[in-house]
Amino acid sequence: MDPRHSILFEPITIGPKTIPNRFLQTPHCTSFGTTKPRSQAHHRKVKAEGGWGLIFTEECSIHPEADQFPFVLARLWDDEDVANLSLMCDMVHDEGSLAGIELWYGGVNPLNMESRGVSRAPSQIVSDVYSMAPCLEMDLSDIELVQGFYVDAALRSRDAGFDVICLYGGHEGLLEQFLSPYFNKRTDGYGGSPENRARMWREVIEKVRAAVGSDMAISVRLSADSLRGDEGILLERDVLPFVRACDDIVDLWDVYLGGVDWGDDATPSRFFRSGRALEYVKRIKETTRKPVVAVGRFTDPGAMAQIIKEGVVDIVGAARPTIADPFLPAKIKEGRPEDIRECIGCNICISRFEHGGPPIICTQNATAGEEYRRGWHPEKFDRATNADSDVLILGAGPAGMECARVLGERGMRNVHLVDSEPEMGGHLRWLTKLPGLNEWNRVTDYRMVQLEKLKNVEFIPNTRLSAAEAADYGAGIVIAATGSHWSEAGLGPVTRNGLITSKGPSVFTPEDILKHGREVPGSHVTIIDQDGYHVGAGLADLLSSRGKKVTLLTHLSELAPYTNYTLEANFLRRKLHKQGVKIVTSTVPVSVTDDGVQAHSAYANSDDLQFYPSDAVVLVTQRVSDTSIYRTLQDEIGSVQLLEDGVESVYRIGDCVAPRIIAESVFDGHRLAREIDSPNPAIALPYRRERLVELRLERTRPGALTS
Amino acid sequence: MDPRHSILFEPITIGPKTIPNRFLQTPHCTSFGTTKPRSQAHHRKVKAEGGWGLIFTEECSIHPEADQFPFVLARLWDDEDVANLSLMCDMVHDEGSLAGIELWYGGVNPLNMESRGVSRAPSQIVSDVYSMAPCLEMDLSDIELVQGFYVDAALRSRDAGFDVICLYGGHEGLLEQFLSPYFNKRTDGYGGSPENRARMWREVIEKVRAAVGSDMAISVRLSADSLRGDEGILLERDVLPFVRACDDIVDLWDVYLGGVDWGDDATPSRFFRSGRALEYVKRIKETTRKPVVAVGRFTDPGAMAQIIKEGVVDIVGAARPTIADPFLPAKIKEGRPEDIRECIGCNICISRFEHGGPPIICTQNATAGEEYRRGWHPEKFDRATNADSDVLILGAGPAGMECARVLGERGMRNVHLVDSEPEMGGHLRWLTKLPGLNEWNRVTDYRMVQLEKLKNVEFIPNTRLSAAEAADYGAGIVIAATGSHWSEAGLGPVTRNGLITSKGPSVFTPEDILKHGREVPGSHVTIIDQDGYHVGAGLADLLSSRGKKVTLLTHLSELAPYTNYTLEANFLRRKLHKQGVKIVTSTVPVSVTDDGVQAHSAYANSDDLQFYPSDAVVLVTQRVSDTSIYRTLQDEIGSVQLLEDGVESVYRIGDCVAPRIIAESVFDGHRLAREIDSPNPAIALPYRRERLVELRLERTRPGALTS
Repeated sequence: MDPRHSILFEPITIGPKTIPNRFLQTPHCTSFGTTKPRSQAHHRKVKAEGGWGLIFTEECSIHPEADQFPFVLARLWDDEDVANLSLMCDMVHDEGSLAGIELWYGGVNPLNMESRGVSRAPSQIVSDVYSMAPCLEMDLSDIELVQGFYVDAALRSRDAGFDVICLYGGHEGLLEQFLSPYFNKRTDGYGGSPENRARMWREVIEKVRAAVGSDMAISVRLSADSLRGDEGILLERDVLPFVRACDDIVDLWDVYLGGVDWGDDATPSRFFRSGRALEYVKRIKETTRKPVVAVGRFTDPGAMAQIIKEGVVDIVGAARPTIADPFLPAKIKEGRPEDIRECIGCNICISRFEHGGPPIICTQNATAGEEYRRGWHPEKFDRATNADSDVLILGAGPAGMECARVLGERGMRNVHLVDSEPEMGGHLRWLTKLPGLNEWNRVTDYRMVQLEKLKNVEFIPNTRLSAAEAADYGAGIVIAATGSHWSEAGLGPVTRNGLITSKGPSVFTPEDILKHGREVPGSHVTIIDQDGYHVGAGLADLLSSRGKKVTLLTHLSELAPYTNYTLEANFLRRKLHKQGVKIVTSTVPVSVTDDGVQAHSAYANSDDLQFYPSDAVVLVTQRVSDTSIYRTLQDEIGSVQLLEDGVESVYRIGDCVAPRIIAESVFDGHRLAREIDSPNPAIALPYRRERLVELRLERTRPGALTS
Repeated sequence: MDPRHSILFEPITIGPKTIPNRFLQTPHCTSFGTTKPRSQAHHRKVKAEGGWGLIFTEECSIHPEADQFPFVLARLWDDEDVANLSLMCDMVHDEGSLAGIELWYGGVNPLNMESRGVSRAPSQIVSDVYSMAPCLEMDLSDIELVQGFYVDAALRSRDAGFDVICLYGGHEGLLEQFLSPYFNKRTDGYGGSPENRARMWREVIEKVRAAVGSDMAISVRLSADSLRGDEGILLERDVLPFVRACDDIVDLWDVYLGGVDWGDDATPSRFFRSGRALEYVKRIKETTRKPVVAVGRFTDPGAMAQIIKEGVVDIVGAARPTIADPFLPAKIKEGRPEDIRECIGCNICISRFEHGGPPIICTQNATAGEEYRRGWHPEKFDRATNADSDVLILGAGPAGMECARVLGERGMRNVHLVDSEPEMGGHLRWLTKLPGLNEWNRVTDYRMVQLEKLKNVEFIPNTRLSAAEAADYGAGIVIAATGSHWSEAGLGPVTRNGLITSKGPSVFTPEDILKHGREVPGSHVTIIDQDGYHVGAGLADLLSSRGKKVTLLTHLSELAPYTNYTLEANFLRRKLHKQGVKIVTSTVPVSVTDDGVQAHSAYANSDDLQFYPSDAVVLVTQRVSDTSIYRTLQDEIGSVQLLEDGVESVYRIGDCVAPRIIAESVFDGHRLAREIDSPNPAIALPYRRERLVELRLERTRPGALTS
């Protein structure tokens, strides 16, 4: 280990507990909660194994009236929830780490669509993020009741085996709602002055402390500033006095920045560099005598050690970096920081939670969320039973690189990764030229380092193989990873016959601009976005920053709706608004000409057209798979000839199967490599589904099962 | 029974099976799927008990690559799914009805966010309803593979005990995508001519028929017209030839109208009357020699009998009416059609599925979805253990009416339902004056009839009781159901300090217009909508139809986003567009003056204001509970005095707790009445949660459970 990093491995005491090092996995969602206890436990266990010293659950609802379903939180509503979370505690403890739980009550925000309850709030002013979330204004008996819910959940936490209870402000959950004048309009002893607004939270800490006794540590996770100006929580006015008032009864302060729009905390790399909140954190560290932890998308061991040495934090908090690399601490300890799979800050992990239900995924770490259900370990690979095969992979994009890496780890005799370009990376080589996407290059960087280390893998650049050459190459397994391209015809979800038959000089695709550097003529550009993720909006950003007057026209109801899920939307929309980009939503294009776009409202008929004059038009409609090599191998050369050439199997992975988000392409390459020795590698093996299974009744129906 | 209705009770044969009557519950979602097998089974069983002769599941995914999670479908991926669905079959059979399953593969639409697979589609043109749904264009081997998935699922259906397999077009799922030129751009034998486009579907029917043999019936559910013009499926060009070609191998035709935007099928009563599709259905009925079923939100027995007699259908299909009243057939058979709890067509049932996960609810039937988890039966009520109590309910809105009804059914000695208005209904009396909401009055109508029949319940109109009078009334249980009102200050999610301090003559609330009939002055009205459901949009509809120039200004990103969930959004937006309503989205109001509204973009700061001149402003910001009577009882009179007055308990229900959708207010009144004899009726009893529970490991931690 680099001695400059050794401070990261010093134990630290928080109340009655000692964390073995300075690596803390702050609470983060997985969509496992208590519903998928085994997935939950195995996901957390891998991180303990990788060296994270204290590992939290996601936010954990303390009562059915704090029901945020379909968003999947943990729950501690009853003893069966206790049993389910105890599995995580046991598995984390087995690895020598501590386990923590983050207790949550929602105030104005819970939807209560499962429990059908009503949430209790400081004041009856409804949620600014969810529609139809009923809430009532708490009276004193409600306050006592909810404090009792916290105590009950704390006792259940102890029963489950947790070491640390986090009394969570909640990204503007109940406790921060009491503290914040934005939510708290009360005129009694729980509203008004900062002291009054802090009363609820302080009493909860006191009651939980009294209830759990001295065998658990209590952390408080709070926003240093809700970034709502005077209306919200302010550091000097609200937070520092609160820290002083509660310092005696709190064992660890966990500090973040922002409010319910939690992109201010889980910052997208597109808009923020690592460590955004540290200026605020430092002020809290100066105020308290207790340890402080904070996140900042830290992946660099030097930077981590530095913020401890500089007295900004005592413990390095991380959520996304633990997902991208559960073994980050171990890799530092073993002196191989170059092996760290760095979080790229794309927030696709969060996108799954934000959809309400789908399990966590990661662009960098294809095993994230798959630890239990597919039995995948991020750092361990079985030798393939067909390891004596040679493999040819056509295309060194995300899927191809990952597939080569995992096949290399699985001991295949020779893996040749061939690409027509001089470097690996595939479409990331040009996509990351969009504003703010520099960190996304880590997808490529990590794999370049790993492939360099694997002696059985060779990258062969500047080589474009035809299907026939691929068949003749000498590999028994041929894998097409040939990617996709943006439709040049404007084919897309609402232009299913395309928009143009041939692309004139004023029409562009994203590749034209980013890959080929084609100059966009004139002053006024219209971007037709039917994709709804970041490419159309990113091009609007790029072109408007170059001085173009940009109109983004989309059939969707808002700009780049998919970026709502990645917490990028508000930043993106503010930036484009500032740069004067005109957003035309709910509008369906019907034709593109040399001088503009014809379109109609999504709520009118196609004879009600409007014209959008433009010097240039950019088509961001949909991507189309590049299947020609795969199709030639399958349809023209065919399996008989392939076998004669010594090709036993042909597979395809990534965007050349179906264009998709990077995380899913990486997953696809990983999946094929993990299952390359399964009976039919082309189709994924079933995964374990955590569910209640009804006992089968005795049946006499003809043809029915009888077991 | 009325003899005119007897035709509804004649058995009918479909292939090898006989349905005992003409009532068929068409497939509909519950969010139970195979994940909550007991909730699924109990929900369907109650309908069998109530007389529905053939009862389907919701759509059932046949393979992990048709994964629509977080939308909850049934699944038949493996034998554990078989076990889970077999419970439904057994329970439906026990009541003497048949059980059917609807098989689904998604083509371009599956999100595959759980399975991480890739769906196979006729052509690789992405979904027009979901973003980031990857799909590939099927080759001939893919076609054979997917046909095999149908066969596998059909065999599993038989194993589970189903009587009928529905080979479902899918509201533009795979089979309709093949049939529709909108999706199918193929140039091989599966694309082009109507016959080629029908080939996939026909082959699936043939293969399933061959696989399951003669002991199951096969129905086909298809759209008569996808309402996309020539681009989509057309009745004469595509459907009638398909019906003729497959008539020999299909046992039942299940016809609906429209496509993936399935509000065209599950029509909201706001825009459509019952039986919208019948003109189309009739054409199919004329073409086939097999029985035909179709839905049309039928609740009237005369109309049901009529369409059979007229030869439009052979069987009456229903989804929403079965949810609102599982006992609809039984009530017709028993000659008491006035007891039918008629579906109001609000589509709040659908809204839960459309949220992705939350269980089904119903405005009319508070027990829908609660059959298993709370053990509630729609028609059966236990006598309360405290039935010797007298109950006073203050307020005859949805919650009060329902609470009175259920307390009456539970045998309470006397229930007095008191209201200041001459008739019951609460806010529904004026809310239903919004365009198209006439059928929503059924909420009141049903309860008026039921309360009239209950001898222990009395409605006392035109009576406004003070808190003191309520305490003195002589009832041991007092229940406040006093409702709520729209904020007169413009208090709302993004105007948390309100917009005005006193309401001048140009400012209106919904009550001003709908309840008090106040005339809106001038020509230009701005509606400030922070609610996002239907009231703001409904007022825009009303006022624009009266000739006003209407601007609807909302901080939300689209008009009335909550109506996306109820399938009303597209109709609403088209109508308002046609009526010239100007929609200003993503805009935050900051002040209201006599001559207009100041507001700024949601993506700019509050110093970047724009002025919206208006002769009148309507505040649709949020509702505020009317708590004064409850608060006076609790805080001023107090429990000691109340006990002296003979009042043992005071509860509150409905909007006076927290303003919410009507279904949840009705539920709240129902819930209190069901649990009026529980230890603490103010807090809901826990409900059964269907989940996997981890076996508890042996534990030695201090304070931990050891069992």
